[in-house]
Amino acid sequence: MIARFFCGVFLVALALVSCARAAEPAAKKIEFAIAVHGGAGIEPDALSPDGRRARTRALGQALDVGRKILADGGAALDAVEQTIRLLEDDPLFNAGRGAVFNAAGGHELDATIMDGRTREGGGVAAVTTVKNPISLARLVMTETKHVLLIGHGAEQFADEMRDKRQIERVPNSYFSTDVRREQWRRKVEEEKAARGNKRASGAATMGTVGCVALDKQGNLAAGTSTGGLVNKRWGRVGDSAILGAGTYADNHSCAVSCTGTGELFIRNAVGFHIGALMAFKGMSLDEAVRQVIDEVLPDDSGGLIAVDAQGNISMRFNTEGMARAAADSRGRVEIMLGK
Amino acid sequence: MIARFFCGVFLVALALVSCARAAEPAAKKIEFAIAVHGGAGIEPDALSPDGRRARTRALGQALDVGRKILADGGAALDAVEQTIRLLEDDPLFNAGRGAVFNAAGGHELDATIMDGRTREGGGVAAVTTVKNPISLARLVMTETKHVLLIGHGAEQFADEMRDKRQIERVPNSYFSTDVRREQWRRKVEEEKAARGNKRASGAATMGTVGCVALDKQGNLAAGTSTGGLVNKRWGRVGDSAILGAGTYADNHSCAVSCTGTGELFIRNAVGFHIGALMAFKGMSLDEAVRQVIDEVLPDDSGGLIAVDAQGNISMRFNTEGMARAAADSRGRVEIMLGK
Repeated sequence: MIARFFCGVFLVALALVSCARAAEPAAKKIEFAIAVHGGAGIEPDALSPDGRRARTRALGQALDVGRKILADGGAALDAVEQTIRLLEDDPLFNAGRGAVFNAAGGHELDATIMDGRTREGGGVAAVTTVKNPISLARLVMTETKHVLLIGHGAEQFADEMRDKRQIERVPNSYFSTDVRREQWRRKVEEEKAARGNKRASGAATMGTVGCVALDKQGNLAAGTSTGGLVNKRWGRVGDSAILGAGTYADNHSCAVSCTGTGELFIRNAVGFHIGALMAFKGMSLDEAVRQVIDEVLPDDSGGLIAVDAQGNISMRFNTEGMARAAADSRGRVEIMLGK
Repeated sequence: MIARFFCGVFLVALALVSCARAAEPAAKKIEFAIAVHGGAGIEPDALSPDGRRARTRALGQALDVGRKILADGGAALDAVEQTIRLLEDDPLFNAGRGAVFNAAGGHELDATIMDGRTREGGGVAAVTTVKNPISLARLVMTETKHVLLIGHGAEQFADEMRDKRQIERVPNSYFSTDVRREQWRRKVEEEKAARGNKRASGAATMGTVGCVALDKQGNLAAGTSTGGLVNKRWGRVGDSAILGAGTYADNHSCAVSCTGTGELFIRNAVGFHIGALMAFKGMSLDEAVRQVIDEVLPDDSGGLIAVDAQGNISMRFNTEGMARAAADSRGRVEIMLGK
């Protein structure tokens, strides 16, 4: 009698579980997705609790700006630009205000943006008075036949774009912060002490920002913005100014934004590389990203964020940490600094 | 009797042919190979017989410099640098002396070099007083931890390298020639007439030089040098300054040097692209080059030269012509301007 009762209960339970399973909808398609980074090389343990909180909050706010644009049906390109503008304005990151000091005690900024729909893109290097280099990079894409404008010439282009709402000009000192000035002072001392050692450590020099997005129309976009290396000289330009290296987007594969020792990312054409592993070898986004981060790039060289046309997001790095955040239409929201 | 005689003759002939075949050595391995270009977009029919002869002679001389270095067991990197120096010194080509005029009536030069053995490389953009930008690019590779130095900063780096034998400085006017001044004048008029038409024609703006080589040690190298676009402004930089785009070398795949509408070559990471099609899709060098020139790049955008680790050479373009030459250890020597 008792055995029969338990058998009955078991069968009823089984039936209920089966019904619940049948009623469960298939995993919903991801309608939009976005990822943001605030630079690789950050060691979360080296930050104060306040420092960690401030970065987490800033990444969350930036993510939110882009997420809202995408949720409202806006373009991936707009989400990328507006998200990066917010990070450029935030003195915590090495882009726009808060950019590192170069060897001359000033700031030279690089940025790129790329549209996965058209595979057009634009970039600027070594600009000194443009508050939001990512917006100037977008105008290079839409208003010229070029993809890279540099230095004084890029400033002249900015002069000609002065009527555009998004191009605000500032004195170079606008980008300066006390924290970066102190970092520069320490770097100069460190380099004096290490004179003759050609290969300086890369980790201390990171802090680039970037964003990748998929919109409801199925378009991908990517953007990156940076102040480059602390105490850089000789007009050094890194991967954040170079399409195919620090920034890449193609609706047929993925959108990528990188951060790290830019020279390695240029030599390995990292952005294009990820897309090529997907398109030519049939790898998934995450397989391609793992391959490049784990096999192609040396340890401690940096990281990247990437999204594909299905809304899959991959965020990987081979440094101690990478400030990063991701969200999508299925309610995913995550913000992380360390491993 | 006659039938028997002919039958005998036939058998003897057959035996002789067989013997000859057996004695014929297997195709000799290519020990070294080199290819040179002097720019795509040249329409050979538009040149005078003297113009064609001058270009053919100049390409032949440059090829010979590199070929001799390789035949003597020298390094691919040296062959590439010395070959390009000769072309930079020749006023016929848009690199070094003979570079096109920019919008300010001056010259801004870009160059890159890459070592397939180490996959290290160096580049300079918008230099104005360095007689041979390819040699400065090589010093960026060997004497700094960077891969791209631009403008005034690159000139400062050249100042610091003044003791290096290969870095001669010249006034910017050294690069000027009457032919280029006249070309610039025509271009300015043409652009005035076409005001509002954002996409100018690309073909008239080509003339870059480049070299790729395989040496007897099995190392590949590539280099490219250019004056860029006629009447360029805003500090425009093209693919000749960008590793992975205009110049690429990797002993495991190929060495590539490009010429054409640089923006398209950057967006498609053409140098790295060729290597990726070989490494990731198993294409031969020529299949990979065809794929990029015929399928990836739009018509009339340019061309490239490439060599692989077996000494195979591919030189393809989708413009009217491309000044080019090739040689290898098996005695191949060819110089061509048109299709």
